[in-house]
Amino acid sequence: MTTPHPRLSINQATIKYTTVAQAIEVVKAAGIESIGLWREQVQEAGLAESVKMIADSGLRYSTHCRGGWFTAEEGPARVAALDDNRRAIDETAALAAAGADGSRAALVIVVGGLPEGSRDLVGARDRVRDAVATLAPYAKDQGVQLALEPLHPMYASDRSVLSTLDQALDIAADFDPEVVGVTVDSFHLWWDPEVLPKIARAGAEGRIASYQVCDWKTPLAADNLLSRHYPGDGVIDFSDMTRAVEAAGYTGDVEVELLNQDIWDTDPAEAVRRTIAGFDTAVAPYLA
Amino acid sequence: MTTPHPRLSINQATIKYTTVAQAIEVVKAAGIESIGLWREQVQEAGLAESVKMIADSGLRYSTHCRGGWFTAEEGPARVAALDDNRRAIDETAALAAAGADGSRAALVIVVGGLPEGSRDLVGARDRVRDAVATLAPYAKDQGVQLALEPLHPMYASDRSVLSTLDQALDIAADFDPEVVGVTVDSFHLWWDPEVLPKIARAGAEGRIASYQVCDWKTPLAADNLLSRHYPGDGVIDFSDMTRAVEAAGYTGDVEVELLNQDIWDTDPAEAVRRTIAGFDTAVAPYLA
Repeated sequence: MTTPHPRLSINQATIKYTTVAQAIEVVKAAGIESIGLWREQVQEAGLAESVKMIADSGLRYSTHCRGGWFTAEEGPARVAALDDNRRAIDETAALAAAGADGSRAALVIVVGGLPEGSRDLVGARDRVRDAVATLAPYAKDQGVQLALEPLHPMYASDRSVLSTLDQALDIAADFDPEVVGVTVDSFHLWWDPEVLPKIARAGAEGRIASYQVCDWKTPLAADNLLSRHYPGDGVIDFSDMTRAVEAAGYTGDVEVELLNQDIWDTDPAEAVRRTIAGFDTAVAPYLA
Repeated sequence: MTTPHPRLSINQATIKYTTVAQAIEVVKAAGIESIGLWREQVQEAGLAESVKMIADSGLRYSTHCRGGWFTAEEGPARVAALDDNRRAIDETAALAAAGADGSRAALVIVVGGLPEGSRDLVGARDRVRDAVATLAPYAKDQGVQLALEPLHPMYASDRSVLSTLDQALDIAADFDPEVVGVTVDSFHLWWDPEVLPKIARAGAEGRIASYQVCDWKTPLAADNLLSRHYPGDGVIDFSDMTRAVEAAGYTGDVEVELLNQDIWDTDPAEAVRRTIAGFDTAVAPYLA
């Protein structure tokens, strides 16, 4: 059995059907040192209980997933979304404080798509900036970094009007890097001809909050949300991107987050084993 | 019945199951002034016969679809691809010459994805540049413009390693604008936060060879190639993009190319009627 790389973190989405307790157990049993949980499972287990389990586990807490979904126009839905993000910030602070040394208090932000019936992409993007401005002081008070995640442009209408790393960095630029950073995810960014200089920019600006790796393979799943593959199983060359993230000064955990029905239907321990093996071959050689 | 906009052109992919003769008949019967054909159908009808039909029709010839697919590494497959592109250039020259005044000799280029088993995206992109350099003198001799089409990044691995307008313009920059231009397609570019300045750049450099409009709607079709919708049926706001293309000096035809199984299963005359109506509402108001 391959020894897991010390910076590998399992994002709970990879083992979606686990409870918090099960996810921690599987990750620890595999010898992995870090984990990122999802809000739904944390809320199901209860925040206080989840915090206790993370503290007892000795694991680092890599990211909390996820906040965002705040592109709605002014009104109750927007107010509710911002309130929910404040709760997500609270959760992030508590879970990260319970994590082992090296844990980051990073809340991954998926901003959301166009509101139903809207064609105003520019307006939705403006509201992302406004929402970040609204949440940033609260995040700062809680010691939490908002990790803006540009998603692949195929999700621009329904999941994330934030589509490129430069766009995320332009929004982040108004805020302290400790409060607003970016998530670099190979699946979302691999195609970008300018991804390497953009990663360098993110590093120079001190913004890389998380590095997530998973692979791209076609044909995409019929539900394109579920097209993420174990590192090494697709066409992404992780060497240059990983070296660029390293060169940009990122020293944190590297998360594997696999939304894929076949992987979800795999025994979680086996999915984690395959993740470790893929990471070891496709990503680890390029980490310092 | 809506009178078609004089710059509207029907790309044969919208009425995929037509022969050249049928496509011309349907387009003319609808009062449309321009058409773009696909190579497969032209070859089935025969080039000389297709040229004669275009000449007899009085239609403009907007684009020939399509060349490209030249990302293979050195070897017989690459030689064959380049030879096939020379034939496509010949076809383009002959068909455009037969078209009514205002016809462009534009060959749409879809460059192709990663070769089977390859992860070398940078190398594939370099070979696109090399292929354009190889074909440009031949295109110039035939009076044909290669219209490099950046495709949506969701096709980066399997259909087009050319993903952004800037990337296409950077390749085109080494060549005469009359020989190497770009295709601006709303479906492929609508998500790009920088699309308007990139269109302005394309105009300033004299590179806009074709403007194609169709709409984006989610959920995408299970086969994401077939997710293109009538203008107005999705979330794209055609106003700013169309005005930008106009402001960039483009005065040519505006093609509607709809790869969509439901539309293909529609009677071609009805599909053309719906195209005219959608174009009239969603696009025409922004044309000069």
